[in-house]
Amino acid sequence: PNADAYGAARERLRNQARPAGSLGILEEVGARLAGIFGTIDVRLDRKIVITCAGDHGICAEGVSRFPQKVTPQMVYNFVGGGASVSVLARHAGAEVRVADLGVDWDFAPDLPIYHKKVRKGTANFAAVPAMTREEAVRSIEAGIEIVDELTAEGPVHLIGTGDMGIGNTSPSTAIIAAYSNIPVPELTGRGTGIDDDGLRKKIAAIEKGLALHRPDPKDPVGVLEKVGGLEIGGLAGLVIGAAAHGIPVVCDGLIATAGALIACELAPSARPYLFAGHNSVEVGHRYMLEHLGLQPLLHLEFRLGEGTGAALAMTLMDAATRILAEIKTFAEVGINDAQ
Amino acid sequence: PNADAYGAARERLRNQARPAGSLGILEEVGARLAGIFGTIDVRLDRKIVITCAGDHGICAEGVSRFPQKVTPQMVYNFVGGGASVSVLARHAGAEVRVADLGVDWDFAPDLPIYHKKVRKGTANFAAVPAMTREEAVRSIEAGIEIVDELTAEGPVHLIGTGDMGIGNTSPSTAIIAAYSNIPVPELTGRGTGIDDDGLRKKIAAIEKGLALHRPDPKDPVGVLEKVGGLEIGGLAGLVIGAAAHGIPVVCDGLIATAGALIACELAPSARPYLFAGHNSVEVGHRYMLEHLGLQPLLHLEFRLGEGTGAALAMTLMDAATRILAEIKTFAEVGINDAQ
Repeated sequence: PNADAYGAARERLRNQARPAGSLGILEEVGARLAGIFGTIDVRLDRKIVITCAGDHGICAEGVSRFPQKVTPQMVYNFVGGGASVSVLARHAGAEVRVADLGVDWDFAPDLPIYHKKVRKGTANFAAVPAMTREEAVRSIEAGIEIVDELTAEGPVHLIGTGDMGIGNTSPSTAIIAAYSNIPVPELTGRGTGIDDDGLRKKIAAIEKGLALHRPDPKDPVGVLEKVGGLEIGGLAGLVIGAAAHGIPVVCDGLIATAGALIACELAPSARPYLFAGHNSVEVGHRYMLEHLGLQPLLHLEFRLGEGTGAALAMTLMDAATRILAEIKTFAEVGINDAQ
Repeated sequence: PNADAYGAARERLRNQARPAGSLGILEEVGARLAGIFGTIDVRLDRKIVITCAGDHGICAEGVSRFPQKVTPQMVYNFVGGGASVSVLARHAGAEVRVADLGVDWDFAPDLPIYHKKVRKGTANFAAVPAMTREEAVRSIEAGIEIVDELTAEGPVHLIGTGDMGIGNTSPSTAIIAAYSNIPVPELTGRGTGIDDDGLRKKIAAIEKGLALHRPDPKDPVGVLEKVGGLEIGGLAGLVIGAAAHGIPVVCDGLIATAGALIACELAPSARPYLFAGHNSVEVGHRYMLEHLGLQPLLHLEFRLGEGTGAALAMTLMDAATRILAEIKTFAEVGINDAQ
């Protein structure tokens, strides 16, 4: 990011005809976007939410209330435009793209999604590593490739990251456990809505996997390999790819932020391009945001994924750009003695 | 509101192809709007933010860091379209209308605002009642008239309420003090950004006014008369007028919510039409929302007024209507065994 444009933005915000700092969090969002684009007149014209899908062997432990076949069914729903992220992206003026990183299903090659399947679902990380190290690397590379392919079509001004994968709050929780050292029961939420018995199984499965593999937080690819997910690797790659292209990226909830965390551990220079869309009901998400030093834009008690929180947050990022560019200064409106 | 439409909305939300309850606060917003409009296919096509302006005699106590003449200067800024609320309303696809309830300034009769001046600013409520009882009634009536005039132009689907008035966090804080019995120092914020000395003066002035007039919370018009503001009366009238016309109304921060509180005390049947736009930095606002039983949509650390938080919240209310109407159900997308 460009420090001069950031500084010019902060100065303009300070001189606008309103009390200094009175537009709270959106002022810093606008200034950061100015730094990223090198101008205070930012236009987020082309916004794209990328929803990465994958399946999870950990489902064998009874950690989710939905069957795994819902993952491919929801991929078709995204393509059809009737899913939650489809609706919220339309509201935000964004496109949705879907990527198969590891769904346990054969999609027809002409289905309009990114076909980046690394393998058909992870292994059960409560028993064996979720994937090989090569597969972990490949999933991250696939996310980077998607951004390369997208930008080859034309300029992209904002990328949102979202996920689909039955069972994927378990690997995401395992990842934040590896980075925070907070006990698993304090980090584990109910995902799509499991009952008390399911929650006990989920905590036990995550604890078993962590005890078995002892993922080393200094080796983010190893964390992904041992307790991660293929779509989580893809989501990490999206953040790295976006940053490499100078594109801001807003992440959704627990799963997308797990990917962003892996990305920033691998490539700390990606962090200045990263924004947090919302604050998920899933408790582990809060610790991820703390680890990343991100302040979420929305607090709506969402616990859905798909990119829904990222899509809706895009509307606030658009608002932040307009605040910066369009609110007049005291001098511009001739109120010279107010301050 | 129509209980059948509300019930049908809740049922549709429950059956959508996503975990039940996963879109958090926006589900209830959508269902409430369905109840208000009597349909699950709500379109908030015509949205209007009404910014009510007035001046305050309490400024003589040194409670604000801006001089009073900024109130009329900002009215001209609203009309010119370069103010914060102008920008955020454009972002939300809303119009801004400005109303003079009691600015200490002579506006030209052809200035395109609602000319509803009750008097040129309140008296200093630390010494005498802010206004007469007749003036308090007149200010509320003026707000109701504005909604009558607006709806006479054509259908209105959502009204946002905002304020402009140097010094107006003081009467607003006095109002929530009268209703909560919480000590004034715990309720008083820094408004536009006063220093420690200003904060002490502000607390002292509010305490003096409350001790002198002992406003009776069972007499909301009396509270307005003794420690209120003319634009606060107008803001109360807007809520009553909107509810009377069956129009949902989203209130902004401390001052607009003070008006909404007076409105709901006077006319409790207005409450089902009321939404809270955001959670202000001003501490008293939280207690107003608790008193009204409202959950704010945005948490962006705004402390500006003008209707900025209400305008931005309109985009989330639009999102809530699209969530309800457009996200497909499990049955509609053929995922029949997911639940």
